[in-house]
Amino acid sequence: MPDTFEALSTNHQLRAINDALSDGDFVLVQAKLRSLAPCDVALLLESSHSRIRTEIWQLIEPELYSDVLEELSEDVRNGIIRNMLPEKLADALEEMDTDDLVETLSSLPEAISQDLLASMDEQDRLRAQQGLSYGEETAGFIMNTDAITLRPEISVEVFLRYLRLKGQIPENTDTFYVVDREDKLIGGVALTKLVTAAADTKVDTLIKSSEAIPVNMPDNEVASLFERYDWLSAPVVDENNRLVGRITIDDVVDIIREDAEHSMMSMAGLDDEEDTFAPVVKSTQRRTIWLGVNLFTALMAAAVSDLFEAALSQLAVLAILNTIVPSMGGAAGNQTLTLVIRGMALGHVSANNARWLITKELAIGFLNGIIWSILIASVIALWKQDLMLGAVIAFAMLINMIAAGLAGATLPMIMKKLNIDPALAGSVILTTITDVVGIFAFLGTASWLLL
Amino acid sequence: MPDTFEALSTNHQLRAINDALSDGDFVLVQAKLRSLAPCDVALLLESSHSRIRTEIWQLIEPELYSDVLEELSEDVRNGIIRNMLPEKLADALEEMDTDDLVETLSSLPEAISQDLLASMDEQDRLRAQQGLSYGEETAGFIMNTDAITLRPEISVEVFLRYLRLKGQIPENTDTFYVVDREDKLIGGVALTKLVTAAADTKVDTLIKSSEAIPVNMPDNEVASLFERYDWLSAPVVDENNRLVGRITIDDVVDIIREDAEHSMMSMAGLDDEEDTFAPVVKSTQRRTIWLGVNLFTALMAAAVSDLFEAALSQLAVLAILNTIVPSMGGAAGNQTLTLVIRGMALGHVSANNARWLITKELAIGFLNGIIWSILIASVIALWKQDLMLGAVIAFAMLINMIAAGLAGATLPMIMKKLNIDPALAGSVILTTITDVVGIFAFLGTASWLLL
Repeated sequence: MPDTFEALSTNHQLRAINDALSDGDFVLVQAKLRSLAPCDVALLLESSHSRIRTEIWQLIEPELYSDVLEELSEDVRNGIIRNMLPEKLADALEEMDTDDLVETLSSLPEAISQDLLASMDEQDRLRAQQGLSYGEETAGFIMNTDAITLRPEISVEVFLRYLRLKGQIPENTDTFYVVDREDKLIGGVALTKLVTAAADTKVDTLIKSSEAIPVNMPDNEVASLFERYDWLSAPVVDENNRLVGRITIDDVVDIIREDAEHSMMSMAGLDDEEDTFAPVVKSTQRRTIWLGVNLFTALMAAAVSDLFEAALSQLAVLAILNTIVPSMGGAAGNQTLTLVIRGMALGHVSANNARWLITKELAIGFLNGIIWSILIASVIALWKQDLMLGAVIAFAMLINMIAAGLAGATLPMIMKKLNIDPALAGSVILTTITDVVGIFAFLGTASWLLL
Repeated sequence: MPDTFEALSTNHQLRAINDALSDGDFVLVQAKLRSLAPCDVALLLESSHSRIRTEIWQLIEPELYSDVLEELSEDVRNGIIRNMLPEKLADALEEMDTDDLVETLSSLPEAISQDLLASMDEQDRLRAQQGLSYGEETAGFIMNTDAITLRPEISVEVFLRYLRLKGQIPENTDTFYVVDREDKLIGGVALTKLVTAAADTKVDTLIKSSEAIPVNMPDNEVASLFERYDWLSAPVVDENNRLVGRITIDDVVDIIREDAEHSMMSMAGLDDEEDTFAPVVKSTQRRTIWLGVNLFTALMAAAVSDLFEAALSQLAVLAILNTIVPSMGGAAGNQTLTLVIRGMALGHVSANNARWLITKELAIGFLNGIIWSILIASVIALWKQDLMLGAVIAFAMLINMIAAGLAGATLPMIMKKLNIDPALAGSVILTTITDVVGIFAFLGTASWLLL
């Protein structure tokens, strides 16, 4: 009987372990840890306070180290690795799949990773160095080197006999790769085709024209190819079309999530890998630059208001209403910005349709401007019993909504051209624009018409 | 020879098709469309203006309709379906996999989907109705019903012979399911195990203890199980443990991306499915509620400032600096909010560590408060040559940064308890809190100490 739903109870298990830990009942903790899958141990570590992480780690069986480390996010993993004895760490690394080994090494400080490489055996050192040579965030970096290859001229029967002799197939294998004598890729043969074909079929007749991924392709492009073509795995080739490895969907899933999260995290000024339970001082440091940038833009907005000191000191109501127009511009601009950033990530926005998209967002800004101008004019006319003041704020609102649409649509495109990450810097620049335009439009018109 | 990198050139193909369309060379467009994979046709449609979409659609071969519709996002798909002839649409739907069929039907207006169901043949209608009965965003809704099953007592040889006779295996099949005579699930057998086992092995000895997904499990939980355990497929069972279908990784990948995007889109007040190239009026309507909510909160902040009219009319400098403290509180609170929302989505934040997390964010708020208080006090003291004013804004900053940390950490937890989506409403409520607290702290302290 299968467990109909072991995983559902993971949360309870985590709570039980936490309770046992706080009771100091380490024997019970160890017993419970032994019953968990490595990914669940990783989840437990990720969900724990950094001090408790160290306690839990000491209770994990050393043979699980590599499996658990593979599942952890960079920040948490590095925190643990820093407290491990070098020889235990080297043992754990040698047991990792190539892609995880390479990722782990590259995220460590240079000195530590060099020491570790030196202490590994020849074969592991070579596969690690090979992977590291491709550079982070490329296909070569995330591939595994465990692909099973075959020659075009052999028959299905012979190959299936070979597999049975081999006795084991690397996990997540759905395709075997047909290569020539120089290891050049001819194509892929699906395992499902092999088992449904007649025994004497030559494998080259079963090849599906499978695309190959160049070893230096950026990993987010790899991910969108997997997503678009529903691949389970894909071969990786070097510049001479020689097969060097394969990428499997389980590694791509992580990239898809990270890419999708990247925009959200960046837009709030957070690092993708930010660990929810990192120590206070570390988190404060990480978030502080963003707040500094924000303070600078807030001071800029204040400096714009400062230009209108005369108007503000004559009419306190201007001071009271001064935040409304910038706030609406920021909200509307942020909608456009988010939509365009996502559109670019999905590959929907390109030079072909950029102009049309900008026109569209300008039109939406204009329409929204009209709607909210009328509404705010009515509210202010009623609240402050001043029709002219209503007209002034309505005019400023319209101007700022159009500016917001324009800025929201063009900023990400300009930043992409300049190779700046739009998700990281876009919203701060956008808010500065909508603040400055909004304050200028409102206080400027007011100074001109109301004083 | 494989195409070493057909997909890379997709962008060029899209441009060529756009050019041919604007030249009115429909024959060329048709020829080019025929050379594209369905997912690339879908990408072309998604990247096009709604008017051009209709033109392109008319040039696609009808036998590709179902494959292309499957790949489109809800908004774009429904736009196209509304212009299709009912009989052509019914034909296209009948060719779809169950999960895509069910999803498409459920996203259409009730009247249309009922008509379509009525015009389908018996078998397709039944599988559609079955899927629809599970309710949106559940395992039953996204599963396929094409799993191959086998009995525990047969041998590997017999089963492989059966597969060869069958001649075809549904795509993305990595596991076959062993069931008893009542269709109750016993477990899964991996295809890789079957081909490496000795011919006379009984399949029940090859079963890996595979978990089963209950048919009513929410699809985001399904996705996180796939992500955590690196599954390629998983069986779905009803409440009696009877196998009713299977879920494959390609459908889960879409859910993972949508879930990850959901937070970003919601935080900007956008619908997940918002089509980048929707008509202007439709987009304006969709974004307008969010802007209304934002206007309401901006008016609330203005109402708070209004309470301090006396102070503002006496000291125009207060009006000038009034936006700085709310802005910093908003930025800091938004960092915390984003981090906690992501932590909850990944399953890292739970009742076990909530209190600790809140304490941590309060401490970060306090530390950030100290840092930025000192800085802003120095800037203001220098700029406005007023030490006391610097002290006032510093105090307000400290208060608001602590409030921001507290609100950012607790809001998503409270909202989750109340079953409100924290990504959708969290940032608006947060900004209201940091605006109100910031203005109260700054203008209140200023009224008390400076007048």
